[in-house]
Amino acid sequence: MGQLSELFAPETVAVVGATDREGAVGRAILENLLGDFTGEVIPINPKRETVLGQECYPDIGSAPPVDLAIVVVPPSIVIDVVENIADADVENVVVITAGFSETGGEGATRERDLREIAAEYELNLVGPNSLGIMNTALEMNATFGPENALNGSISFMSQSGAFITAVLDWANEQEIGFNEIVSLGNKTVLDETDFVDEWGTDEETDVIIGYLEGIDDGSAFLQTAREVTEETPIVLVKSGRTEAGAKAASSHTGAIAGSEAAYETGLEQAGVLRARSVGELFDYARALSGLPLPESDGVAVVTNAGGPGVLTTDAVGDSSLSLASFTDETIEKLQDVLPEEANVYNPIDVIGDADVERFETALEIALEDPNIGAAVVVAAPTAVLEYDGLAEAVIERTDAYETPVVTSFMGGGRVESADVVLREAGIPNYFDPARAVSGLDALARYRDIRERTVEEPMTFDVDKERAQAILEGAKKRDDNRLGVEAMDLFDAYGIPTPQGAVVDDPQAAYEIATEIEGDVVMKIVSPDIMHKSDIGGVAVGVPDDEVASTYEDLVSRGRNYQPDASILGVQVQEMLDLDESTETIVGMNRDPQFGPLLLFGLGGIFVEILEDTSLRVAPIGENEAQAMVDEIQAAPLLRGARGREPADVDAVVEVIQRISQLVTDFPAILELDINPLVAGPDGVTAIDLALTLDSDQL
Amino acid sequence: MGQLSELFAPETVAVVGATDREGAVGRAILENLLGDFTGEVIPINPKRETVLGQECYPDIGSAPPVDLAIVVVPPSIVIDVVENIADADVENVVVITAGFSETGGEGATRERDLREIAAEYELNLVGPNSLGIMNTALEMNATFGPENALNGSISFMSQSGAFITAVLDWANEQEIGFNEIVSLGNKTVLDETDFVDEWGTDEETDVIIGYLEGIDDGSAFLQTAREVTEETPIVLVKSGRTEAGAKAASSHTGAIAGSEAAYETGLEQAGVLRARSVGELFDYARALSGLPLPESDGVAVVTNAGGPGVLTTDAVGDSSLSLASFTDETIEKLQDVLPEEANVYNPIDVIGDADVERFETALEIALEDPNIGAAVVVAAPTAVLEYDGLAEAVIERTDAYETPVVTSFMGGGRVESADVVLREAGIPNYFDPARAVSGLDALARYRDIRERTVEEPMTFDVDKERAQAILEGAKKRDDNRLGVEAMDLFDAYGIPTPQGAVVDDPQAAYEIATEIEGDVVMKIVSPDIMHKSDIGGVAVGVPDDEVASTYEDLVSRGRNYQPDASILGVQVQEMLDLDESTETIVGMNRDPQFGPLLLFGLGGIFVEILEDTSLRVAPIGENEAQAMVDEIQAAPLLRGARGREPADVDAVVEVIQRISQLVTDFPAILELDINPLVAGPDGVTAIDLALTLDSDQL
Repeated sequence: MGQLSELFAPETVAVVGATDREGAVGRAILENLLGDFTGEVIPINPKRETVLGQECYPDIGSAPPVDLAIVVVPPSIVIDVVENIADADVENVVVITAGFSETGGEGATRERDLREIAAEYELNLVGPNSLGIMNTALEMNATFGPENALNGSISFMSQSGAFITAVLDWANEQEIGFNEIVSLGNKTVLDETDFVDEWGTDEETDVIIGYLEGIDDGSAFLQTAREVTEETPIVLVKSGRTEAGAKAASSHTGAIAGSEAAYETGLEQAGVLRARSVGELFDYARALSGLPLPESDGVAVVTNAGGPGVLTTDAVGDSSLSLASFTDETIEKLQDVLPEEANVYNPIDVIGDADVERFETALEIALEDPNIGAAVVVAAPTAVLEYDGLAEAVIERTDAYETPVVTSFMGGGRVESADVVLREAGIPNYFDPARAVSGLDALARYRDIRERTVEEPMTFDVDKERAQAILEGAKKRDDNRLGVEAMDLFDAYGIPTPQGAVVDDPQAAYEIATEIEGDVVMKIVSPDIMHKSDIGGVAVGVPDDEVASTYEDLVSRGRNYQPDASILGVQVQEMLDLDESTETIVGMNRDPQFGPLLLFGLGGIFVEILEDTSLRVAPIGENEAQAMVDEIQAAPLLRGARGREPADVDAVVEVIQRISQLVTDFPAILELDINPLVAGPDGVTAIDLALTLDSDQL
Repeated sequence: MGQLSELFAPETVAVVGATDREGAVGRAILENLLGDFTGEVIPINPKRETVLGQECYPDIGSAPPVDLAIVVVPPSIVIDVVENIADADVENVVVITAGFSETGGEGATRERDLREIAAEYELNLVGPNSLGIMNTALEMNATFGPENALNGSISFMSQSGAFITAVLDWANEQEIGFNEIVSLGNKTVLDETDFVDEWGTDEETDVIIGYLEGIDDGSAFLQTAREVTEETPIVLVKSGRTEAGAKAASSHTGAIAGSEAAYETGLEQAGVLRARSVGELFDYARALSGLPLPESDGVAVVTNAGGPGVLTTDAVGDSSLSLASFTDETIEKLQDVLPEEANVYNPIDVIGDADVERFETALEIALEDPNIGAAVVVAAPTAVLEYDGLAEAVIERTDAYETPVVTSFMGGGRVESADVVLREAGIPNYFDPARAVSGLDALARYRDIRERTVEEPMTFDVDKERAQAILEGAKKRDDNRLGVEAMDLFDAYGIPTPQGAVVDDPQAAYEIATEIEGDVVMKIVSPDIMHKSDIGGVAVGVPDDEVASTYEDLVSRGRNYQPDASILGVQVQEMLDLDESTETIVGMNRDPQFGPLLLFGLGGIFVEILEDTSLRVAPIGENEAQAMVDEIQAAPLLRGARGREPADVDAVVEVIQRISQLVTDFPAILELDINPLVAGPDGVTAIDLALTLDSDQL
């Protein structure tokens, strides 16, 4: 596969299937390309001599050399046409034609063929079922949509072509400009990860935005996006957030919907800012493409009206930012220049008779305060305030202080021309102060993403061969569910377990019990019996001399309960003193898109009823494992709230990392739960294990 | 006080302080009134013969009869002027003049005087420090703002005059119309409750909206708003939601900020829809003023583009509504009329080549489905779609089916004229489908408010005199903190307590203990010792023959710990078996605005760490007490989650109601906590009491 930059910067573009038939897609694309494109455009169609006055070639082999081919032929001949294109040494192909996997059956077969050809010839292939691509720097509109984009620094990908059409019509009116645009279509070859990768190194792209209904390879996306977001912000609408939405997305694209929890976690780990609506997408993009990042979280509000000032302060309170406290020096300076009735504390109220000069002076004093990372200028209409002048003043101060300033000029008609001036300078201006502040919030959140450290996962010294053997043992037993009989897996990965063993005769049980100090706990071991306590399959506080008879008793209860149950034996285990301990759960579920999704929470009601859990896509480093423990609401319980002795949180954090390593080492582990992992002041102990295996992957 | 409707419907308006001096407020108001007002306008100014060509009178006594006086004189003479106005039998007064309590000191005194005069003469007085009032039906603009409002059915009050000015400039451009508008100013006489009351019976008002920074008498507002919202929706921005915002609001208005939790709860109980931003305020107001209420929660989405359809479905999933399932009949009808590639399940995708007719047919079929309560039409621009026609079709269907339909015509320039058509028909249309859906959400939430039943508080048969005596006992002791020594308060109000008593000598302790079956619990009783267990002030499982010596022991520990502590005695109490029980907390805090704020939660970590509580302003009926129990996250624990025996929830609900009655009966109780109220399968028991008293109110 060549560089994607060539896809967007061709000198010559062929439209295969070009036609001058009114209403045809092959005509619309040709017209769009002939409109403004700075390069050559070549129509290809065996049935025409010329199309729209351009010389037409029967096939790509007979045409002059081409850098990019746009395919708009009927679905039945797409495969042949793409093969011809590849034979003519053209690497970049956009397949507009629909009728592939989205229609099922024959279309799906056709899409497999297309993927194979693309792989064979290493094609950069967009689509099929795509609206096309654009590059505003070359004024190249290789889509069949009705709108050209304005030039700007936002690069935009969308899994929905209609979404691009809708956005462009609106964005042109809002004067929001784009750099490159791609309609991803069925993503048979090139997908979101490829374009994120490409735009991450593109000088002309300040912000990457996208509308996605699914991410095919979540784990590749996470890796790429994590690197890209160190330099370039990514804002995505990933739709199908809600259950109803996920069902609709799945029926729309034919793809299997991944779990929303995995997307939420994976995108967060990738450093992606997730927008919940198209409005939020562009509010974020506008701020990120036009403004510097705030150096600190302190915001100054400068307003000529108390009420709107309070509204704006609330919006700051809702955001990740905070209202700054001014230094004494700032307050004195403000007192010197503002009328007595003005409020010199944040929010600064320059009061209703303020003109542009007073506003500007107050803003300048605020921006000089070392506690200020950003500012919001909120202006209600008055007889003396001239909005155009205020816009100019804000632009000058923003440039001079390299500090992000957003505005809420709260008016309609009388704000219009100032709004245009601000927009051209890249300053987001909204009637609603909350939207202005939400742009600042995006800046601060992106700054945090840039500054964060993603630690490499630790590699613990584990016994991988032994773990492999335990898993293969289960495979031999022809069972994909493992329980306490596989507790050695924890030993192999350095996770503490209670003293004890699973044995399959009463004498062995007795021998184990004598090795253990004090009474023991005994449990029947069977993958077929889920609720062991309910059938009397658990005995607590068994003295050594009753161990053998208890063994018989437990096994016969099991047989009575379920005669066909596979009974693997009985677990004999030391009794733990749980009074000073807290039950936790460490789990993993393998997500189809993102892979191993780790879960942490406190046991019992905390996970089951309060759903107080934290998630991460594995593998994770120590700081992320630590964050998993810290971010549950009940975390203070582990830290010794209400007079309890604090649990050994470091040991919990280590177990999470060791499980991260285990599930990364063994893709065959589909699900895994340590429930409970008992955390006490002197360390942790894994008491129970439930594991589901995909033995084909062993 | 007369009818407020007269305030808004004067035949003759006097402007006291009218002037033709350029830039003066007294000129601006006169100009606004002379502009379009259908009634008479009379300038009053002792220094002029005429003002702006109108005959001017030296004082109101010498002018013809007047229905409404607008006061714009300097602050120092406002009191005299208002007295003259009252003497002239004018009942309706708007004081524009600023310089009252908002400036502190002298201004505050002046405001007290103004309040007294208004009370003496029973004036309907708006302000002071007000922008003025408007009534669009009479084209009366009695404000000094630069904008006239358009006529419509929204009535609008604001604690910020600048907010009105800002909104009108913007609303005029958006063609949002208003009925009556009031700038509340300092709310010395007329406040939010008065206008809610007035507009609740006003035929011309479909929606009441407001911007408030505080509500002076929360409990009066709650009662009035609760009645009004049975017929007329109220949407409020109550700013100062966040800590920073509350501080800013308090410094802006000089009022003490109430607690946000009380506002949140009180407004919810009042049936008010609370908007978080000015954008949300008008998105809600627009839907509520233009559309019928949905009869059910099922939403149909009709779109010509899959991606936008999924986005819209997500927005429905975020709302209180849900995506409807169509009947088989609907699906068959859609299959009959739509192309094969269309999606006939909700969201309906009429696909990209749909014209207006196909859209309309699909919408009509959807609206006929009995599962549909509302619909969203989402249209991306295509070559064949004609937006104006689609707008007309949507309007016709909305009218025909009396079902709310909102639209997201996703475009810019090409949507403009359709947007105007929709707006005139009262149909909210937005580029962002999420905003369209949020309007439907407001409709559904308001429908639920209308349909809900506010039950009358039950009146339990209690011993109020005994309670009074107990509280007065504490007053005599000169202590405002009551503890277990006042447990009889619970007995008086029918709340079960453990067997036992507080005694002040060892022999009495022994006698109590012998009356109790089994061992007892003993606790030192002192308002000065907070953490009794920590100092060894609690003894558990005391047999009868050790009671006397334990008494001495506890008292001496108390004296050693804190020699000056007031020790009231020792509590001797039966031992409860807590194994099958759950600790709950029932509490009350008196809010300065809303009064007694009840709290319910589970004991220990649930309240302290997880903050899992529910709140209500007392008094409440049974269904609200029940809701308090149901809405905490941990409620399943009381209902018998994880194999426990369910607690007697009815008894918990009854205690909440009895506490509601107690704190309503005794305004002197400032704070009260039953912590814990132990709830078991066979009932509840109040174990401990903490109460703070305002003895001046006894």
